[in-house]
Amino acid sequence: MSVIDLNCDLGESFGPYRMGYDQQVMQHITSANIACGWHAGDPVVMDRTVAMAVELGVSVGAHPGYPDLMGFGRRHMECSSAELRNYVIYQVGALEAFCRLHGVGLSHVKPHGKLYLDCLDREEQAMVIAQAVYDYNPELIYVAFAGQRGEVMRKVAAEVGLKVAFEAFPDRSYTPDGRLTTRDTPGAVVTDPDQVAEIALRVATEQKMITIDGSAIDLEAQTLCVHGDTPTALDLVKSIRKKLTSAGVTVAPMSRFLK
Amino acid sequence: MSVIDLNCDLGESFGPYRMGYDQQVMQHITSANIACGWHAGDPVVMDRTVAMAVELGVSVGAHPGYPDLMGFGRRHMECSSAELRNYVIYQVGALEAFCRLHGVGLSHVKPHGKLYLDCLDREEQAMVIAQAVYDYNPELIYVAFAGQRGEVMRKVAAEVGLKVAFEAFPDRSYTPDGRLTTRDTPGAVVTDPDQVAEIALRVATEQKMITIDGSAIDLEAQTLCVHGDTPTALDLVKSIRKKLTSAGVTVAPMSRFLK
Amino acid sequence: MSVIDLNCDLGESFGPYRMGYDQQVMQHITSANIACGWHAGDPVVMDRTVAMAVELGVSVGAHPGYPDLMGFGRRHMECSSAELRNYVIYQVGALEAFCRLHGVGLSHVKPHGKLYLDCLDREEQAMVIAQAVYDYNPELIYVAFAGQRGEVMRKVAAEVGLKVAFEAFPDRSYTPDGRLTTRDTPGAVVTDPDQVAEIALRVATEQKMITIDGSAIDLEAQTLCVHGDTPTALDLVKSIRKKLTSAGVTVAPMSRFLK
Amino acid sequence: MSVIDLNCDLGESFGPYRMGYDQQVMQHITSANIACGWHAGDPVVMDRTVAMAVELGVSVGAHPGYPDLMGFGRRHMECSSAELRNYVIYQVGALEAFCRLHGVGLSHVKPHGKLYLDCLDREEQAMVIAQAVYDYNPELIYVAFAGQRGEVMRKVAAEVGLKVAFEAFPDRSYTPDGRLTTRDTPGAVVTDPDQVAEIALRVATEQKMITIDGSAIDLEAQTLCVHGDTPTALDLVKSIRKKLTSAGVTVAPMSRFLK
Repeated sequence: MSVIDLNCDLGESFGPYRMGYDQQVMQHITSANIACGWHAGDPVVMDRTVAMAVELGVSVGAHPGYPDLMGFGRRHMECSSAELRNYVIYQVGALEAFCRLHGVGLSHVKPHGKLYLDCLDREEQAMVIAQAVYDYNPELIYVAFAGQRGEVMRKVAAEVGLKVAFEAFPDRSYTPDGRLTTRDTPGAVVTDPDQVAEIALRVATEQKMITIDGSAIDLEAQTLCVHGDTPTALDLVKSIRKKLTSAGVTVAPMSRFLK
Repeated sequence: MSVIDLNCDLGESFGPYRMGYDQQVMQHITSANIACGWHAGDPVVMDRTVAMAVELGVSVGAHPGYPDLMGFGRRHMECSSAELRNYVIYQVGALEAFCRLHGVGLSHVKPHGKLYLDCLDREEQAMVIAQAVYDYNPELIYVAFAGQRGEVMRKVAAEVGLKVAFEAFPDRSYTPDGRLTTRDTPGAVVTDPDQVAEIALRVATEQKMITIDGSAIDLEAQTLCVHGDTPTALDLVKSIRKKLTSAGVTVAPMSRFLK
Repeated sequence: MSVIDLNCDLGESFGPYRMGYDQQVMQHITSANIACGWHAGDPVVMDRTVAMAVELGVSVGAHPGYPDLMGFGRRHMECSSAELRNYVIYQVGALEAFCRLHGVGLSHVKPHGKLYLDCLDREEQAMVIAQAVYDYNPELIYVAFAGQRGEVMRKVAAEVGLKVAFEAFPDRSYTPDGRLTTRDTPGAVVTDPDQVAEIALRVATEQKMITIDGSAIDLEAQTLCVHGDTPTALDLVKSIRKKLTSAGVTVAPMSRFLK
Repeated sequence: MSVIDLNCDLGESFGPYRMGYDQQVMQHITSANIACGWHAGDPVVMDRTVAMAVELGVSVGAHPGYPDLMGFGRRHMECSSAELRNYVIYQVGALEAFCRLHGVGLSHVKPHGKLYLDCLDREEQAMVIAQAVYDYNPELIYVAFAGQRGEVMRKVAAEVGLKVAFEAFPDRSYTPDGRLTTRDTPGAVVTDPDQVAEIALRVATEQKMITIDGSAIDLEAQTLCVHGDTPTALDLVKSIRKKLTSAGVTVAPMSRFLK
């Protein structure tokens, strides 16, 4: 495969609080997952972030989360199916309003933080969210965890009929069974820009990921998730983009090449 | 004029808290202004309320408010123009998501509580909100205060090019200059269902409102605002509907007859 | 034992939303667990509820919950120990401020909803909360689930050195192993005031609870939890109080008789 | 006068959001105004900030604000007297809980942002807040705007019987009638550390403030407000502290020298 997308979580500032290097990161990515005001973001931030994405030709996706600003959507909340469904619809609709104002369509949905991780293990929850996205708009792309670890998301998306973009994490090390190593594992986070770019290229061209023990596993991914909340992460984004482009890989929004 | 709309603020429950007699009131009105989760309402309530409206053929409007659940959107908040604009867009978009899920279009927008009242006196704020609604969707109807008191809203809507439905309050007494009397004025609230229905009929057929001093003023209104948060208010709604219908006035959603 | 306390969760209104029959229920109980503004309640409600309790000689306890107003604190949230500890301290301190204003001391702490239930199964969480209460004020009484089901709470309170009042639920049926039957079990909720009063009396005088299968289990309780959020629940409260008093049981605040 | 206090607003981080250079600033000040979780701050941040203050011998004050995290308490909210009173009591109590845990008393209260500024112009509001602080604890020091501009605060504090520490802003320029110049005035903010330190020293030793037109006005102040939310502001704090100390001015917590 000679085309891949670069996605990043953006629009996470809130009121007086700044988070992320949105302006800089936006220059290098192709898809932005924009917070919808529940775990992060607010309407002013959403408007500004969508405007920025549109100006730079970056596809806009919704990044809904649990209703927990204080916990940044990173804490599990025991919600009913009706709650989950309607929380997702609410947030996706709110974000799409800004897309509408800026003359662009919504491209994808990627659940945030624990709402995302819960979809890896809880089939019912994964199904409810996938169905909510589909019912809202069957043309939306669902961003899911690539590889074995994302099996539940893959399965429910297939059942629902949702288009999926699987994502890989080039700055995180993987276990041989396709999970991310926990953050306290030595080498869990790869910080060298060249090395991260190498990993990204390998995913893009060979659909392979090197694991923490040095072996390689198959990992089919249509998008690479990059982080943008530290100045050094910004170097990674640039490095990945440059490496992919030099190697002849087309870097394009997922909505452009996912049928 | 032989057609008028009946609107009511609904969907004001939140989480464990019940407010209003939505199910009963919905039977008798033609347009529902549904809270969008900021001053009242939550996604589960929004979904349920939109579903109920659609089932009964009631038009759905957004009822955005200040970000102040504790104050129920009834306290002025000093917001910038960018904040006001984006707060309205966010809430309207969130509500329209549920309309989309239930296969119905959004019909109108009516600001809630203090956000509405502030539009009567603050031209810049009124303009920002009218423009936000128009930019979101120029086909939306803007609900504004009928008569002299709503002059600012009328003016900005005309400048923006928004369609407007002026609303009268048949259970509130008016001053000779077209304001509502303050709630501590004797007779400020009319509680007798027959009397309220008489007032409603007069607005619908003669475009006249009786004032607190017994005179009549011109009051052109396309919609009557009825309350639904007490059991007795429910009697008013029924009484108005019955009276209008018996008198040959067509009671229909504003979106049906406003060109 | 010829003395027992009657406790009730109160002060659960929020902003424009009314919940519970606080004024009526307060006449019949001896200890009020007052919401602290996180899962329910707000400062105006807290002030009013504490004032009411003081006026009627009812002991005031804090009823802290998860930071989840929309879910009424009934949904599990995955919090760290530092979060749990500080959330409890914050809420207890906020409530005690109102006690101070009304010239009364804080008597007890009872976690609310899921924060309470999580203490039954998660020892670490139970320990963190018990320790937070103790560190705040070692004289406070901790309200815990009576019987086998409350074993974890009993254990951690003992380790910490907290005074405990075990509570029983006279309007809920118990399983033979001392759990509450789930709400979908036939007979899970006892609604007949006479029957509930009988059960309450038996707990107070014999320290026995009848289970759903008709057997009796030992249940040592120093306080009975009564509900006050429906008009019928109010009948239960009255009925229990009357029955206990007629039978010569002293009904008094837990702080009065727990050494 | 040869003694003065240095106060700074701290503890303004929230959940995942960092704000301010608390750790560094705390080294140089003598009184910390700590946010109470409404306009900024959360229980984990409050605990950490109080612990830090106690460790460095800095006095702890409560910094209550409007219930508006998104607006950082900088937007006026039209609250009733009962709301204002109880909002202040709630927040002060919550903060004092952490003081209690860390074995220190609460020293002072300074309203935050717009809640503070509204006290300069709205006598009723100023009175309600002063009375709330006094009723909570008559020993607390109330931080008020120094000079003519703070006349309303001075008056209500005197009526209530509250101890007051007047504060001056050495990095802001003043008008000849003792107001801060608006931020768009050239020279509104003084950024040179030496110059700011000079101004601070003059306030401390001569009770004089240089105005924007070069004249000097009387300004009696017991505390200097310094900012800590930018790396350059940190230089100001250090510079002020050093200058004062070298000039023989004692820099000490207001609670130490205000009788």
